[in-house]
Amino acid sequence: MDSQSESGVFAAQVDQVTIIGTGLLGASIGLCLRQRNYAGRIVGVGRRQETLDIAQKLGAIDQGVLSIHEAEQLPRDQIHLVILATPLGSFADYFIELASCQPTGVTFITDVGSTKTDICKAAADNLEFPHLFIGAHPMAGSEAQGPVHARADLFQGGLCILTPSGTNGDIYAKEIVTDFWRTLGMRTAEKTPEEHDRLVALISHLPHALASLMVDLADERKALSVAATGFRDTTRIASGDPQVWTDIFTTNRQAVLEAIDLLDNKLAELRQVIADGDVEKVFAWLDKAKSARDQWLTEGVTEA
Amino acid sequence: MDSQSESGVFAAQVDQVTIIGTGLLGASIGLCLRQRNYAGRIVGVGRRQETLDIAQKLGAIDQGVLSIHEAEQLPRDQIHLVILATPLGSFADYFIELASCQPTGVTFITDVGSTKTDICKAAADNLEFPHLFIGAHPMAGSEAQGPVHARADLFQGGLCILTPSGTNGDIYAKEIVTDFWRTLGMRTAEKTPEEHDRLVALISHLPHALASLMVDLADERKALSVAATGFRDTTRIASGDPQVWTDIFTTNRQAVLEAIDLLDNKLAELRQVIADGDVEKVFAWLDKAKSARDQWLTEGVTEA
Repeated sequence: MDSQSESGVFAAQVDQVTIIGTGLLGASIGLCLRQRNYAGRIVGVGRRQETLDIAQKLGAIDQGVLSIHEAEQLPRDQIHLVILATPLGSFADYFIELASCQPTGVTFITDVGSTKTDICKAAADNLEFPHLFIGAHPMAGSEAQGPVHARADLFQGGLCILTPSGTNGDIYAKEIVTDFWRTLGMRTAEKTPEEHDRLVALISHLPHALASLMVDLADERKALSVAATGFRDTTRIASGDPQVWTDIFTTNRQAVLEAIDLLDNKLAELRQVIADGDVEKVFAWLDKAKSARDQWLTEGVTEA
Repeated sequence: MDSQSESGVFAAQVDQVTIIGTGLLGASIGLCLRQRNYAGRIVGVGRRQETLDIAQKLGAIDQGVLSIHEAEQLPRDQIHLVILATPLGSFADYFIELASCQPTGVTFITDVGSTKTDICKAAADNLEFPHLFIGAHPMAGSEAQGPVHARADLFQGGLCILTPSGTNGDIYAKEIVTDFWRTLGMRTAEKTPEEHDRLVALISHLPHALASLMVDLADERKALSVAATGFRDTTRIASGDPQVWTDIFTTNRQAVLEAIDLLDNKLAELRQVIADGDVEKVFAWLDKAKSARDQWLTEGVTEA
């Protein structure tokens, strides 16, 4: 993990950024680039003219087009960087569409997808030049949806995990894409797609599943009327977009199932300790978790 | 559930409040009474003179004494209200001590305990006049400990669950104790001790257990380095005092085990749906939880 961009290779060598999908994340990327005085052209690609118009009015894109082909054919002298910022379920189709474009120069591709193994495989299977794709997971966002909630500082201080592994390893593409995410204010780290998926299953997907289950259970058993701010905070993530999370649970199935099994084993152990009324073991377990969390907090939590 | 106190029977008829345990909750009660211009005497009872001195310097109590006997023997003309604000594990001993006092008038008792079945049973078993005890769970607090973190507004807007059931049903005691908690700014609701314990197991104890398990698992698997603010919020409660929570898991064992089993059944169902790759069922499940949570938020979350 390194500190912020110093080289500026992205700003110096990319003269067109094309954002596919101008929702919360896509529009925030555009706003942030503008705020950081990026001099190149920012193009939005979307299926609906209305969303593109909103993004353009907000100043997130210079122009909106309805297909990747149109974006690819705009005149440029330097590198073209394409960012996939649509729902996970649409990625394979976009890779196929990208592969069908007549190349007019060098095009690098990155993305904002929350899972990586499936996406990197789809890139490898469908892109004509899969080594020009550098998978990324900018750990930023909110429960809010759509370009009207976009913010130039959405990525500031957050962690972006890059997965330039396997066939996805062009060194120049990696340099440009890494600098791009750092330009948005993020720290970057590299993982394999599988390692990424395993880690985020534990710190994001499993917590989401448990939050949703807790709400579901409390609702069924009529307990929400006595729930307070503690429960609200614990379950905040359960208000996330169900479609986004369906895609995540579907594309990261294997790692999520493993995380559920690990949690389930721990829950069974804890159940036994409580059933035994083993006060010392209950204390030791609670104390260990508190220490681990407090230690983590002192080390500084990623702001995203 | 009713709105705030109007009758003022507490302020009119209680001329001594004795707070056993002047930690965060006990000291906050004293500060709040003073802020609301309570005219009676506020006495703190503690094992350590130092803690009492801090509470007195903060203005949370008028005087501190080292035993309930001393507090009971102070001269008064009206009703004496005792509030047990010590760790759950100490309650039975305090009930025995209270029972051994020579009564110098009418003394009502309430408490701040997070579990109620065990406490109400201990009151019934040990107090000389158990019907003068009205169990209470003011749903307020924070991860912070000790009188220096006390706040006059700690209880404002929160829900206080009263459990005046079974043998604990003196109607006058209930009126005074209910008005006392409303005077602190709380809404009140009545439940049986068993119903209370079942509900808080679902919205507080199970979430705490899961938060601790999630931290433990993420720590073991080296995933905390990529965790961000979402994980921080979800696991905030896992930084609570391990001793307080050991008492809770121990005294509310049965309801906690039932909550764990209910959650475990739901987790198994969810695991199957994800393993099957049943996209529609995953979506329906996420959507149901989101709807329940969003509906709950629109109805107004207890501010505590």
